[in-house]
Amino acid sequence: MNPKAKNKVDFNSDIGESFGQYKLGRHEEIIQSISSANIACGFHAGDPNWMKKTVRIAEQHKVGIGAHPSYPDLRGFGRRDITIDPEEVQNDVIYQIGALTAFTSNNKLQHVKPHGAMYNKAVNDEKLAEAICNAILEVDSELILLALSGSKWIHIAKEMGLRVAQEVFADRAINSDGTLVSRSIDGSVIHDANIIAQRTLKMVQEGYITSITGDEVPIEADSICMHGDTPGSVQIAKKVKTVLESSGINIVPLSELI
Amino acid sequence: MNPKAKNKVDFNSDIGESFGQYKLGRHEEIIQSISSANIACGFHAGDPNWMKKTVRIAEQHKVGIGAHPSYPDLRGFGRRDITIDPEEVQNDVIYQIGALTAFTSNNKLQHVKPHGAMYNKAVNDEKLAEAICNAILEVDSELILLALSGSKWIHIAKEMGLRVAQEVFADRAINSDGTLVSRSIDGSVIHDANIIAQRTLKMVQEGYITSITGDEVPIEADSICMHGDTPGSVQIAKKVKTVLESSGINIVPLSELI
Amino acid sequence: MNPKAKNKVDFNSDIGESFGQYKLGRHEEIIQSISSANIACGFHAGDPNWMKKTVRIAEQHKVGIGAHPSYPDLRGFGRRDITIDPEEVQNDVIYQIGALTAFTSNNKLQHVKPHGAMYNKAVNDEKLAEAICNAILEVDSELILLALSGSKWIHIAKEMGLRVAQEVFADRAINSDGTLVSRSIDGSVIHDANIIAQRTLKMVQEGYITSITGDEVPIEADSICMHGDTPGSVQIAKKVKTVLESSGINIVPLSELI
Amino acid sequence: MNPKAKNKVDFNSDIGESFGQYKLGRHEEIIQSISSANIACGFHAGDPNWMKKTVRIAEQHKVGIGAHPSYPDLRGFGRRDITIDPEEVQNDVIYQIGALTAFTSNNKLQHVKPHGAMYNKAVNDEKLAEAICNAILEVDSELILLALSGSKWIHIAKEMGLRVAQEVFADRAINSDGTLVSRSIDGSVIHDANIIAQRTLKMVQEGYITSITGDEVPIEADSICMHGDTPGSVQIAKKVKTVLESSGINIVPLSELI
Repeated sequence: MNPKAKNKVDFNSDIGESFGQYKLGRHEEIIQSISSANIACGFHAGDPNWMKKTVRIAEQHKVGIGAHPSYPDLRGFGRRDITIDPEEVQNDVIYQIGALTAFTSNNKLQHVKPHGAMYNKAVNDEKLAEAICNAILEVDSELILLALSGSKWIHIAKEMGLRVAQEVFADRAINSDGTLVSRSIDGSVIHDANIIAQRTLKMVQEGYITSITGDEVPIEADSICMHGDTPGSVQIAKKVKTVLESSGINIVPLSELI
Repeated sequence: MNPKAKNKVDFNSDIGESFGQYKLGRHEEIIQSISSANIACGFHAGDPNWMKKTVRIAEQHKVGIGAHPSYPDLRGFGRRDITIDPEEVQNDVIYQIGALTAFTSNNKLQHVKPHGAMYNKAVNDEKLAEAICNAILEVDSELILLALSGSKWIHIAKEMGLRVAQEVFADRAINSDGTLVSRSIDGSVIHDANIIAQRTLKMVQEGYITSITGDEVPIEADSICMHGDTPGSVQIAKKVKTVLESSGINIVPLSELI
Repeated sequence: MNPKAKNKVDFNSDIGESFGQYKLGRHEEIIQSISSANIACGFHAGDPNWMKKTVRIAEQHKVGIGAHPSYPDLRGFGRRDITIDPEEVQNDVIYQIGALTAFTSNNKLQHVKPHGAMYNKAVNDEKLAEAICNAILEVDSELILLALSGSKWIHIAKEMGLRVAQEVFADRAINSDGTLVSRSIDGSVIHDANIIAQRTLKMVQEGYITSITGDEVPIEADSICMHGDTPGSVQIAKKVKTVLESSGINIVPLSELI
Repeated sequence: MNPKAKNKVDFNSDIGESFGQYKLGRHEEIIQSISSANIACGFHAGDPNWMKKTVRIAEQHKVGIGAHPSYPDLRGFGRRDITIDPEEVQNDVIYQIGALTAFTSNNKLQHVKPHGAMYNKAVNDEKLAEAICNAILEVDSELILLALSGSKWIHIAKEMGLRVAQEVFADRAINSDGTLVSRSIDGSVIHDANIIAQRTLKMVQEGYITSITGDEVPIEADSICMHGDTPGSVQIAKKVKTVLESSGINIVPLSELI
């Protein structure tokens, strides 16, 4: 059996991305299907009031709570790349982890998953990847880093001694080298809930995924990233959950996996 | 002997009030004379980079570290009153306490002292005072609240079970009912370092202060608030420290007093 | 005939209150029913991208364009009162008027209507009312101030030589002294589209409104404030428009009235 | 005679870069030596209060007033590159030009000079350069763009029909291809006021500059960029002014040159 095969997996989703009067996402629904929540910390979305509400909802559903830190970019929703000195990013991440931690009942987070442009850049930028890992180590060395499966970032984090969880995207096509197919290419995003569910099951149960060119690619799937911003995405999450559970896969928070 | 008389006292000062490229205050100097530091948390001043630097300086000087939370008001430096729902202020304070805590070496603060307009309003506004106390209790019930000596806020905090430190202003004249003489009145602010030092010594050693009309008013002085924004204020702090220490008063962090 | 009676009136609505990824309001619909638009300028809502889009939509519909300046309060949506020095509010208003003006095709606005807490305070606070009027005079003395009908603010503006338009709220009950019935009182907000339409018609055509206690109160209605944030509010606006137009009242921008 | 030689030139400096309680720069001094001022518009520095004060000072000294727009980056002082869609940068620039314009006595600016990272990127990024030019054309096609002498940006702006002023840096060494010597190379920044003055005189009077390798490079110098952040920089500006004027060169605002 492939050592990457598993009988349990985590489902994660970004939640708490409202701000002031502005509501975004379908938290009450997606929270039903996930086991870990990445909660916005005020830099790209979220504010202290939404953070408290979102933490309470996550605690009620016994979902693992993680910080979802971002570059300071409310207007761009954290999707703009900003050339910030990695040492300064480190401080921004420490700040956001601390702020979210204070809203939890036990003053303890489960994990950290950076958001948007910071996440995308850290996948390939060693200095940024290290800075984020250092931020986690400075605050609490037991915190799990949730990052892109198979990335250089994952390797850096492991070498630095962090607890690491590898996430995969259930609705994205994969190249034969394991990278995501660019969104500009036809077929890069999968919309059919059944196909998404079957691909997810295969990743977890067998440790393999079929690439866009038909190759079988080994993949580590500790956690499946689920979207919660449209009715369709909430339905997909439910479907994937049902298919996995009926196949004997348990959906559990990262803390029970890593 | 007056039960308010003491042989040790804390000196506190607001530090870390720079922002980005903008530098403010004389931290390196005032840190020499104080035993507790109130560090800005990004809402009226400070940012994650300055917070880290300031926490490191405070730790090097073995100064007790406290959060100095504010209304969200960078442009007004936290001096504008804002009609925010107390429940929302509570969340803003939790956020700021958490953010600062994450920069400390032991993930632990000593105290919380609100800033500017939030401090001034909490002195007389019961709901706001309670909200701030609730924020402290939610994050860490061992945190000390540092607030105006003799105020209603102090009484509320004590009833809610908080550890409380009462602060006095060494350079301000006092009315016979113990309140501060309004800044609009002549003589309300004292500028002579010797007079400030003698008044401070009397407050600590005897538990009394002479009011502007000549009455002897009992006063509890757990902590003396020192300014650090001008060369003159740094000199006054040094003078007061010297006079107190030569009179046998130890200057110690709040954690050794309360 | 009552000198306050008219055969034409303006319909105004707050639009452009989205921010970054966050969408708010139903601009495409409400814009069909109004003749003047109050556009957010980035302080409580709106950003340069939304301001451009909203100005273009307003120009396409030949709707009069006005600035909707606010206190700097994105998180509180401009609904929090902030004790800002009136001279500083004046500068904030100048800034926002200028910013919005730059997006118009002819570098010219029709009017200015402050938002939220700033509007509510200016109704009774002479210094703030004057500061807002001074801001308008400094930028362009031809700009029309749109403010609460019958208020002290209207009188101050007239004395300062401003062009003034008096607005009324079609869905709010009125006391016999002409002030709005507090929202905390039953019946203060009217929800029935037919009643709203009939009350509006009476205000415009006769210059009177029936107070909550049954008195006939004279009222000046240059402009009717319409909401555009719910499907229901959009329907009400359509109904009122239809009733007025079928009664021979023309709905025209403020610039054709004042 | 070299067609680039001139008998008059503009001196420009960035001013108004304070924010709230934070003061930066030596406006009162540098304003004495310059003929054009680039005024911060609130995105990297400045706020409505400082903008009004700074515009008044510039008007008193009959200095040409220009907008100094930036990426939205108060914490990074506009020095961080941000990957913002050029169309969105265009709107940010329109917003800032409009906001500053509203503070001038005649509702008219002389020029626009982008700040920091936006300026540096526009020098080589055609789409960004075009977006900035489009912003200027949208607000007021008579506004002069002030940008790096000899850059692609200058050529783009000319082709788009803008009025263009070419600026040079008096204290920077130049490569033989006309580009600035990188700050990481020894000798890239010149500190001697006399050398700076002589180089400046040569650029203006002869239209040439001696490169770091000794070549004579033709250069167009419509405006000399002066710093105003240290006592030393203010002294250099005075010296350069004295040398140029005693050599018969008039220092005049851009509007009298372009």
